[in-house]
Amino acid sequence: MRRSREFLFPRRNYLMGAYVGKSDRVLGWGKPMGGWKWIGLGAVMIAVGLAARAAENQPGGPTQSKNVILMIPDGCAVEAYTLARWIKGKELAVDGLEVALVKTHSADSVITDSAPAASAYATGVRTSNAFLSVGPQAKVLSLLAPPGEDLPYRPLATVLEGAKLLGKSTGIAVTCRVTHATPAAFMAHLPHRDDEQNIMIQVVHQNVDVVLGGGRELLLPTSAGGKRTDGRDLTTVLKARGYQMPETRQQLAQIRSGKVFGLFAPGHLAPEIDRPTIAPEQPSLEEMTRKAIELLKTDPDGFFLMVEGSQIDWACHANDPAYLVHEVLMFDRAVAAAAEFARQDGQTLLMVVADHGTGGVTIGNRGPLSKGNMPVEAVVEPIRRMKCSFSALWKKLGSRPTAQQLSEVLQDSWGIEVKPSEAEELLAEARRGGEYLLAALCQRYTVVGWTTHGHTGGDVVLFTLGPGKPKGVLASPQVGQCIAQALGIDLEKLNARLFVEPNQVLPGVKVELVFDPEGEPNLHPAAEKPLPKANPERSPPGAKQPRLARLEYGQRRIQLPLQENVVQRGDRTVELEGLCLYASQTKRLYVPMQVIRLLADSPEPLPPITRSR
Amino acid sequence: MRRSREFLFPRRNYLMGAYVGKSDRVLGWGKPMGGWKWIGLGAVMIAVGLAARAAENQPGGPTQSKNVILMIPDGCAVEAYTLARWIKGKELAVDGLEVALVKTHSADSVITDSAPAASAYATGVRTSNAFLSVGPQAKVLSLLAPPGEDLPYRPLATVLEGAKLLGKSTGIAVTCRVTHATPAAFMAHLPHRDDEQNIMIQVVHQNVDVVLGGGRELLLPTSAGGKRTDGRDLTTVLKARGYQMPETRQQLAQIRSGKVFGLFAPGHLAPEIDRPTIAPEQPSLEEMTRKAIELLKTDPDGFFLMVEGSQIDWACHANDPAYLVHEVLMFDRAVAAAAEFARQDGQTLLMVVADHGTGGVTIGNRGPLSKGNMPVEAVVEPIRRMKCSFSALWKKLGSRPTAQQLSEVLQDSWGIEVKPSEAEELLAEARRGGEYLLAALCQRYTVVGWTTHGHTGGDVVLFTLGPGKPKGVLASPQVGQCIAQALGIDLEKLNARLFVEPNQVLPGVKVELVFDPEGEPNLHPAAEKPLPKANPERSPPGAKQPRLARLEYGQRRIQLPLQENVVQRGDRTVELEGLCLYASQTKRLYVPMQVIRLLADSPEPLPPITRSR
Ligand SMILES: [Zn+2]
Ligand SMILES: [Zn+2]
Repeated sequence: MRRSREFLFPRRNYLMGAYVGKSDRVLGWGKPMGGWKWIGLGAVMIAVGLAARAAENQPGGPTQSKNVILMIPDGCAVEAYTLARWIKGKELAVDGLEVALVKTHSADSVITDSAPAASAYATGVRTSNAFLSVGPQAKVLSLLAPPGEDLPYRPLATVLEGAKLLGKSTGIAVTCRVTHATPAAFMAHLPHRDDEQNIMIQVVHQNVDVVLGGGRELLLPTSAGGKRTDGRDLTTVLKARGYQMPETRQQLAQIRSGKVFGLFAPGHLAPEIDRPTIAPEQPSLEEMTRKAIELLKTDPDGFFLMVEGSQIDWACHANDPAYLVHEVLMFDRAVAAAAEFARQDGQTLLMVVADHGTGGVTIGNRGPLSKGNMPVEAVVEPIRRMKCSFSALWKKLGSRPTAQQLSEVLQDSWGIEVKPSEAEELLAEARRGGEYLLAALCQRYTVVGWTTHGHTGGDVVLFTLGPGKPKGVLASPQVGQCIAQALGIDLEKLNARLFVEPNQVLPGVKVELVFDPEGEPNLHPAAEKPLPKANPERSPPGAKQPRLARLEYGQRRIQLPLQENVVQRGDRTVELEGLCLYASQTKRLYVPMQVIRLLADSPEPLPPITRSR
Repeated sequence: MRRSREFLFPRRNYLMGAYVGKSDRVLGWGKPMGGWKWIGLGAVMIAVGLAARAAENQPGGPTQSKNVILMIPDGCAVEAYTLARWIKGKELAVDGLEVALVKTHSADSVITDSAPAASAYATGVRTSNAFLSVGPQAKVLSLLAPPGEDLPYRPLATVLEGAKLLGKSTGIAVTCRVTHATPAAFMAHLPHRDDEQNIMIQVVHQNVDVVLGGGRELLLPTSAGGKRTDGRDLTTVLKARGYQMPETRQQLAQIRSGKVFGLFAPGHLAPEIDRPTIAPEQPSLEEMTRKAIELLKTDPDGFFLMVEGSQIDWACHANDPAYLVHEVLMFDRAVAAAAEFARQDGQTLLMVVADHGTGGVTIGNRGPLSKGNMPVEAVVEPIRRMKCSFSALWKKLGSRPTAQQLSEVLQDSWGIEVKPSEAEELLAEARRGGEYLLAALCQRYTVVGWTTHGHTGGDVVLFTLGPGKPKGVLASPQVGQCIAQALGIDLEKLNARLFVEPNQVLPGVKVELVFDPEGEPNLHPAAEKPLPKANPERSPPGAKQPRLARLEYGQRRIQLPLQENVVQRGDRTVELEGLCLYASQTKRLYVPMQVIRLLADSPEPLPPITRSR
């Protein structure tokens, strides 16, 4: 099993220790360079041990929690919480939690995108921008060690996958498509976040107990009103596996037990600020979170749940203050629900942590309302008067509004009274584009400032509650390591059990790959939302993927449909405990150890994934 | 002593609890409104008790530390640390500490200025913008309870004053004038931060053991080359009290013991980025911090030290990235020195906390370098090439530079190579003003973004180490309460001992105020740095101040020079343990309880200031 240890190794130890922090030493599951000593199985233990020492709840012993709830307010820098707190007019739920900090950069960018950020939280390993829980490309930031040769594009086991193997229930609740970067990093392994059709195949085959969010269109082929170009109807898989598939909040509310795959919109869910108006049939994030906990907590073995406030990021990309505040406050209500459960339960680790900041939002800008002492009303009133997202306001404006129409829309939608002279100025901005109008409105009529329409590089706050919570300043992979630690998972063992290269562990095995005749990339174009920053070395999202791997060993022949968790032998189809994956960039096949045992007809039990005591 | 309890009381409990947090309940030393129960002496204990439960180092008992080091990076939002970390290329000293968050607003503004922010840390009470450790004006933020009638303008005892009363040594080390807002809040009590001539009188009479920073000009009258308009030479006081007065880093380095009042510049010290060039004789903040600790740690009773990275704020006001990074990195070196001592000592509470953010700095802006993946070099190289502050660069430009001259200065000072076409564009910006040129340079040649030239409202990070450290999300006054708690000080008792209204506790005492014949306001105009935001209800800085109070009780007559810590009786002058102060806005006199004992000829010992066990 040596291969599985060959991950990312510190080239220059002083830099690793210095820069990327303790956590990055965990990446040293690696083949050494130039005569360095092997750092094998022990490396993870040592590094995770560092995190363990930081956890204070059970000094002197490893901390373990039955359940872990990870909540990610995507793009939420610290000042977005402060802004939301003023609008709420009282303490947020996160204000009752403890606090740590997380450094956010990815393997190849000072400013991360959501994919590697969520991957670090999911797998304990830092990867490249746009990558979803596969190893980073070879080219990394100059201050980081390059990955060992076997790491790039290798699938990295997630804490969700680990929780499943421990017999725990698992859940995901988000307000975007469930195939979007953050949820995808917990359930799929692909080197591009935009590859959402393939992501959905993996999501459907992960056997997650509760999946709540948007993205229904990725389940059905175009012929059935969906957006799949591969002709597949994935709802048949879900039905065969016994999933309930609610499509409205009422249907969700009625579910009391069992597996749920609830997608409440063809694409993303509505912005919270617009939901009551344009999509009242969708559940709120709080409702989804409460339902997920209600369903998952019945498992005596515990659960892992990931909740994302997906659109905080988009509100910040848009520099839209009211959209932002409504998203943060709804996310915080979901946190309240989770914290309530965790406090009552006492065996639940709750971690609330953004993946990065977005927009550079501040209370205070260059406009007139930020001069002099700032009363509460200067912060609150302008945002309270905004009755819809800017995008909804912009739609109401139509393509060629007059100054008069602009004034009316601003008055009706955002409660802004505009003098005729101002209306002309604002109209001029509007003609340059929506973002110019919005920038002018923010500056003149709110105290909210923004530095960018993109992500930002600052450390983010990690709020914690419960056994195993970390302290201090963490590197982003430490979040994932800490979750694994809390669940008792040894990440290296988990990877060694879930993602094995057959010919590395079973000499003599023959592998044949079968490509689809049509063979076309299954790319779902990346939505209306801002794209992740381009990654020049990334695998093109349409890289040709084999559909099937055929393995032969002695007398045994099996078929493995790729991105799925099944093995076919003759007429029999058996579910596996993990996905079979092919990395087209490195031409390597990864299968669960279960497949090897099957092929070798070995009675040997599967290796444990828990930390040794 | 009832009066001293009448501070700020929660008007609407649900809002107080919600909004300003647990800490604000501590303000309830107050006369209740409308039939509410008295919350007297116990209130502080209860509230501070909450903080105590949060402190984990000695579970089950009150935590106490021999020494406290409070370090304030003025204006340092979280992203400024991240930026500095990339430039340093390895972990910061703060990265090794634990983490909490602090809500920063003042009593009358969502965005605080440095004066009330530092006052909250110094006194455990939230006050108004521009106020220095005196109670807030009556008008407060709509979500806050109004102050009790005796609180406005009342001097509020500081943890530095409390430490002195416990027999501990005290110190201040800053890179601004020692009369600037942050240090002033620990040593002086005045309702306006700009009143620096009066602040210096109080500073000089506080008997602080080690005072290091700038502001020499405020010690001497104009006739002796200083800036004092009252004709006073305060160096005579310092000499009489045995202070050593080094003026260079060499002189400072040679001091091995004793009291030090080291002001190394007439005004503020030089920006760190420019110091080696323009003021090599000045010590760095790290040197001042190390020397302060070296001198203070010899006190067997312990010490309190406040260190400020004063110019982080100014760099952010200017939106000057290299100035900022040099300030943060030097501040962090001072943190390293303090943390090194605290770890070794084991009885020292170290708290590192900004007073507010400034500038809204982010890694990521709207310029070309923020597009796509961001290599380390995109962050680091532009800032490394900047060899001076923007202000120094701007001076080199002169008043009417040509495009050619602009190009040369940019190349020489900031390593920016400018194409001729760009030079013209930049020149156009420069003609609009320095800030426009700087904004254009930041956007085009760095990845650094800014939202404002003012302060920002976001929560700030509190880094901690040692016994008594708090956790979670704090209101700013809780920082001061936590320090008091760690030192074993009961803030209410401390106030009751240091600031007594004579006629409240000694019926029959006669008080006469003596005004200077010239009687003119002693305002030191507020420097070249950005002014605090205007506070419309603030006392005008030039409010007429009496010079002296004469007290008569029975046969005894004494004189109290105001803002000083001495009592005169006949020919004898005796030092007091605290300052005698007069609040001209409320026409109230405050004196140490010592004065009352003296007047009443009472043998009763002074009341203790420590928490009862
Ligand atoms: Zn994100
Ligand atoms: Zn400040």
